[in-house]
Amino acid sequence: MRYDVAIVGTGPAGLEAAITLKIRKKNIIVIGKKDASSKVRSAERIDNYLGIPAVSGDDLAKKMLDHAESMGVEITEGRVSMIYPYGEYFAIQCGEEIIEATSVILCAGVAPAKTIPGESEYLGRGVSYCATCDAAMYKDKKAVVVSYSPEFEEEAEFLRKYASEVIYVPTYDAGDLKIEGVEIVKAKPVEIKGAMKANTLVTDNGEIATDGVFVLRDQIAPSSMVPGLETEGSAVKCARDMSTSVPGLFAAGDITGAPYQLIKASGEGLTAALSAVSYLSKV
Amino acid sequence: MRYDVAIVGTGPAGLEAAITLKIRKKNIIVIGKKDASSKVRSAERIDNYLGIPAVSGDDLAKKMLDHAESMGVEITEGRVSMIYPYGEYFAIQCGEEIIEATSVILCAGVAPAKTIPGESEYLGRGVSYCATCDAAMYKDKKAVVVSYSPEFEEEAEFLRKYASEVIYVPTYDAGDLKIEGVEIVKAKPVEIKGAMKANTLVTDNGEIATDGVFVLRDQIAPSSMVPGLETEGSAVKCARDMSTSVPGLFAAGDITGAPYQLIKASGEGLTAALSAVSYLSKV
Repeated sequence: MRYDVAIVGTGPAGLEAAITLKIRKKNIIVIGKKDASSKVRSAERIDNYLGIPAVSGDDLAKKMLDHAESMGVEITEGRVSMIYPYGEYFAIQCGEEIIEATSVILCAGVAPAKTIPGESEYLGRGVSYCATCDAAMYKDKKAVVVSYSPEFEEEAEFLRKYASEVIYVPTYDAGDLKIEGVEIVKAKPVEIKGAMKANTLVTDNGEIATDGVFVLRDQIAPSSMVPGLETEGSAVKCARDMSTSVPGLFAAGDITGAPYQLIKASGEGLTAALSAVSYLSKV
Repeated sequence: MRYDVAIVGTGPAGLEAAITLKIRKKNIIVIGKKDASSKVRSAERIDNYLGIPAVSGDDLAKKMLDHAESMGVEITEGRVSMIYPYGEYFAIQCGEEIIEATSVILCAGVAPAKTIPGESEYLGRGVSYCATCDAAMYKDKKAVVVSYSPEFEEEAEFLRKYASEVIYVPTYDAGDLKIEGVEIVKAKPVEIKGAMKANTLVTDNGEIATDGVFVLRDQIAPSSMVPGLETEGSAVKCARDMSTSVPGLFAAGDITGAPYQLIKASGEGLTAALSAVSYLSKV
């Protein structure tokens, strides 16, 4: 089964792209969180979404999700770690699954400003963004997990079912966090070092030898997620039609850079969707 | 009195730019029609404005106008015929008035696909876009009015108070239109000819000698409206931040080209407004 378009992200850009493609009767998959973007939800009051004055982020997110649902949009819960452009189609690593789509719209939110030195260099060689995907390769091995959010604590727990030793390095305030069988190390990651493969996490509190490093963030740097994708600073470089340097891959919303505003994201979602329609008609 | 920003157009792009600039406490003027865009109003049903499902154009226009009004946005009824970039500021010809603003956001709707051969060449030399502005120069002279919409019939009537002879050439179906003291000629304009100045309107039904030609359209070609403004086809050429080839002039909405969709226009209105804010902070 190959989808026409895979939409990665369920903020305003992703939802607008989804309804636009539904209207165009395309076969789509929408991958993200079912409750839309937490960033939208956390806004206390939004005054600049034309047509919906003085609305809370929570209410606006609800309106957007209801709208999408009324058009038959379904959200597949998941986290995309890699997108491989194979020319004719894209292979999208989502958890353990591989999803195929002819075109992709990337609207995964603000790209992280920076990576850990060595992270990009060793990606795929001892550095991984997805514990669920790569856990099996760590049987009787040692793994370090650098985690940017509490939601990844269970990935560390899952990893421990395979790896003989897991060290969890939270970059957030983890309080007195305990994960069974996992050692918690409170330190700031400074660099990932290695030889042919990554073998050491350098922190501000000493070095940790390891067989591999998992780096788990809500958002993955777009250039790490899609081989060959051009960026400007941390944002995906786009033309006015939201096309990127990778043919068939479009982007929309905060991932394309400032302004980080909902209505800008929605507008770009529409443009990206119509550009994908046009791309589909040519391949 | 010089405004920070003049917004030309009251469709979604203009209204979104207006509320964004109000939030930023800028001193703005919004020039256009009080009932927003007739194009929005005429849509029977709109399904792709995220957050407001299954809405009529009329209702959506009302929501947008109410939103703008609730933020203190006032609309100045008027039609802009020329915008002169003077470097430090812009002079905006609106009817007989000249309005000054440090920055301009152009959101005047879809640019006309083509002009009459000779029109751009003789603009300012016997060709004018504004009868109210230039009527006084036609005392005891003859004028031809090429009109693309019934709303300009009264401009012909006004012109006749000065000009000794006015010939009105409607390009729309004018039925048995009568304007006092004005000759109606049903013909298709083919070319504007002249020497130093325009002196002839060529039609598919013969030539009309004249002292000048008024060309009255709802939308004026952006390149005619703003000297030095670069276009791509008929659309204003914009960067991703909605800046144009003229420093301090930004564009948004249908005037920047396809897709001609409301949410795309709203999104661009926001981006243009924030780019104008950034421009103002630098001059």
